[in-house]
Amino acid sequence: MMTFSTDAWARNAARYETIRTMPFNEALAAGTLGRGPFEHYIVQDAHYLIGFGRALAIAAAKAPDPDRMVQFCEAAKEAVVVERALHGSFFADWGISPDDFAATPVSPPCHHYVSYLIATAYAEPYEVVLGAILPCFWIYAEIGRDIYGRASKDNPYHAWIDTYAGEEFHEAVRRMREATDEAAATASPRTIEAMHAAYTKATQLEWMFWNGAHTEAAWPL
Amino acid sequence: MMTFSTDAWARNAARYETIRTMPFNEALAAGTLGRGPFEHYIVQDAHYLIGFGRALAIAAAKAPDPDRMVQFCEAAKEAVVVERALHGSFFADWGISPDDFAATPVSPPCHHYVSYLIATAYAEPYEVVLGAILPCFWIYAEIGRDIYGRASKDNPYHAWIDTYAGEEFHEAVRRMREATDEAAATASPRTIEAMHAAYTKATQLEWMFWNGAHTEAAWPL
Amino acid sequence: MMTFSTDAWARNAARYETIRTMPFNEALAAGTLGRGPFEHYIVQDAHYLIGFGRALAIAAAKAPDPDRMVQFCEAAKEAVVVERALHGSFFADWGISPDDFAATPVSPPCHHYVSYLIATAYAEPYEVVLGAILPCFWIYAEIGRDIYGRASKDNPYHAWIDTYAGEEFHEAVRRMREATDEAAATASPRTIEAMHAAYTKATQLEWMFWNGAHTEAAWPL
Amino acid sequence: MMTFSTDAWARNAARYETIRTMPFNEALAAGTLGRGPFEHYIVQDAHYLIGFGRALAIAAAKAPDPDRMVQFCEAAKEAVVVERALHGSFFADWGISPDDFAATPVSPPCHHYVSYLIATAYAEPYEVVLGAILPCFWIYAEIGRDIYGRASKDNPYHAWIDTYAGEEFHEAVRRMREATDEAAATASPRTIEAMHAAYTKATQLEWMFWNGAHTEAAWPL
Repeated sequence: MMTFSTDAWARNAARYETIRTMPFNEALAAGTLGRGPFEHYIVQDAHYLIGFGRALAIAAAKAPDPDRMVQFCEAAKEAVVVERALHGSFFADWGISPDDFAATPVSPPCHHYVSYLIATAYAEPYEVVLGAILPCFWIYAEIGRDIYGRASKDNPYHAWIDTYAGEEFHEAVRRMREATDEAAATASPRTIEAMHAAYTKATQLEWMFWNGAHTEAAWPL
Repeated sequence: MMTFSTDAWARNAARYETIRTMPFNEALAAGTLGRGPFEHYIVQDAHYLIGFGRALAIAAAKAPDPDRMVQFCEAAKEAVVVERALHGSFFADWGISPDDFAATPVSPPCHHYVSYLIATAYAEPYEVVLGAILPCFWIYAEIGRDIYGRASKDNPYHAWIDTYAGEEFHEAVRRMREATDEAAATASPRTIEAMHAAYTKATQLEWMFWNGAHTEAAWPL
Repeated sequence: MMTFSTDAWARNAARYETIRTMPFNEALAAGTLGRGPFEHYIVQDAHYLIGFGRALAIAAAKAPDPDRMVQFCEAAKEAVVVERALHGSFFADWGISPDDFAATPVSPPCHHYVSYLIATAYAEPYEVVLGAILPCFWIYAEIGRDIYGRASKDNPYHAWIDTYAGEEFHEAVRRMREATDEAAATASPRTIEAMHAAYTKATQLEWMFWNGAHTEAAWPL
Repeated sequence: MMTFSTDAWARNAARYETIRTMPFNEALAAGTLGRGPFEHYIVQDAHYLIGFGRALAIAAAKAPDPDRMVQFCEAAKEAVVVERALHGSFFADWGISPDDFAATPVSPPCHHYVSYLIATAYAEPYEVVLGAILPCFWIYAEIGRDIYGRASKDNPYHAWIDTYAGEEFHEAVRRMREATDEAAATASPRTIEAMHAAYTKATQLEWMFWNGAHTEAAWPL
């Protein structure tokens, strides 16, 4: 029988391809991405990671057994650790001061994505929470690997792109797929459909997040 | 001392004026709104009301005393009752079948707003939940009163516009302001700032909801 | 196929019989219950109803469709309305002043039961929440019917016992069973076992609540 | 100004002394504790730690800043790690097999305490969650230090008692007090009273947990 994650990937293959080839990612790989969109991206990513960490902490609280609790606690902590690394190195490299960061509001797509993850984390059963969390791990890892594979070394963003290639992150993705498939294995068809709906929604919000960086999305009022 | 709600209204006066005069509301008042945007609006409104009802039910669960629990239970129920009324009359009048409705996904701005309300309802303390819930009651009522006041009787949407003018709804708004001000009265400065941030965020999402109807917003992938 | 509720009743038949014949209920039916335990009971019942109402409000927020949302909002409101009726008539009849009530802490068994319902309401999926909520409706109704059937008219608690016999309450129980069986009908075996565990736990806590009244349970430190 | 934790300790000084000198702890220190109560204790402790870890994970999700998120994620993980250590060494030493453990239900006092922590973690604001979580850290550490100080080396439970004396645990307690005092520093008087009520309730439940081990508490039906 097909695992949930294999099925989810197949159902969203066209969406993945749309994300892979969207202007932001093409420009990032080509090294032609403007500094404005890149800065927007890393600032919103820092905001996002905190919200993502909160959703992972709730997943830890809802996990059915101690091993999964530990896995999600570590993933939640790691999201915050990566957020700090952004502040500690990339923000400095690109001249984004702590004051700049504090003065930059969460953008609409970032706010939308984080709101969705937190709403889902609290309101939905564990299985569906995992359906919503998986795309951020998995799509991000695949997009990163794709960009890493085609970006040249003189790409101005190569330091950033290198972070995508970490083996540790790919291991975390593998374990997240495993947790999601394990949860789906004993779920009802109704719950599995809700997992798929969550997976697709988060996939759409991945695109909107990157697109928001590209358009430097801001609140219209 | 200024109540929270008076302060919140003043802080967001420019945003209210932007909403009041935004193209969707101008066209609705003038009777020139296209059928597409109107249908989009009432379909998304039906989706919204269910999510709003869920957030109100959580507010009921978090309310500090029995009277407020009853108030929020009634408000949650009323949101669903209004949603049913949309299905029962407006959908029929405008030729939107149950199948049409079922086939229309929640639009991005509606999904964003509902996600935010539900995330806030679960994750935040009661006072902040009320800060997020109040704009939907209050801005909606004021916009409705404004449009009702200037729409002519041959406006094709007059049946809809009339629903804004119900005295019962304005009474519900008054009680929601009262609950919010009561909660703010003994809150810390930090919590009151979080209430203001929530009020402003929901105000921005009100605009995005109406603008989404005007542009018939859909998921790009 | 056996419905969930029929199965749950059968699995807990011995526990029900233990509750039905426990000293508190025997003494209530016989009219020999001391005034202390009775007063303890109605005071703790008032505390309990507020917590029960909160759990029902969360169930409303998690309900899968608008009709169930309305049902649970109404049930949550009704719990508070009954709590008020206790204050308004029984407390007066038995000389329990508002100050007496305010000065009486939630007893350990009442605190335990309410904590369990609220923890379950937030942490568990809708189906399991219903498994935990059903015994309070159903066992209470059956115990009430049993005591009503055997209590004489000169029972000093007959006014209280009469409240058990309300047709409205039995209709609410019927609808709660229906909602629970509906939820179980499409749930996975794993979720159904979690529903049964919740049903049994709440049944045990029903006994502990009544027993706590009989022993006038208080915090030992 | 007195910190919250100093005030909370003073308000509950008599309760602490009651716990310190309760039969279970006296017998543990004297080495006269029966094997039944000790086994009951470590089995229920293992159950407790998982629930405690879940409450800490929710606290992480609600924490106001990244540093506290990391602190609570680590504490949640540590609770599970300690639970595993129980399984890995003490259970083996005392002949409690995995099957014995699986067959032993959560006892009423353990279920009560865990239900309270999880209900509070979800339903209450961050400050109050910390008020409920602190006693388990702090009282446990102080009781442990006290027993460690007076237990002789030929105490049959000395391996267990030694675990109390770990410097790491006392450091975690210190940081938890710091987080709680930090949260209280900007909280409203109403919230601080709710924090105190939560602290006292958890203190009472600490006693009930130990007392449950001493009486080998079980579900009466």
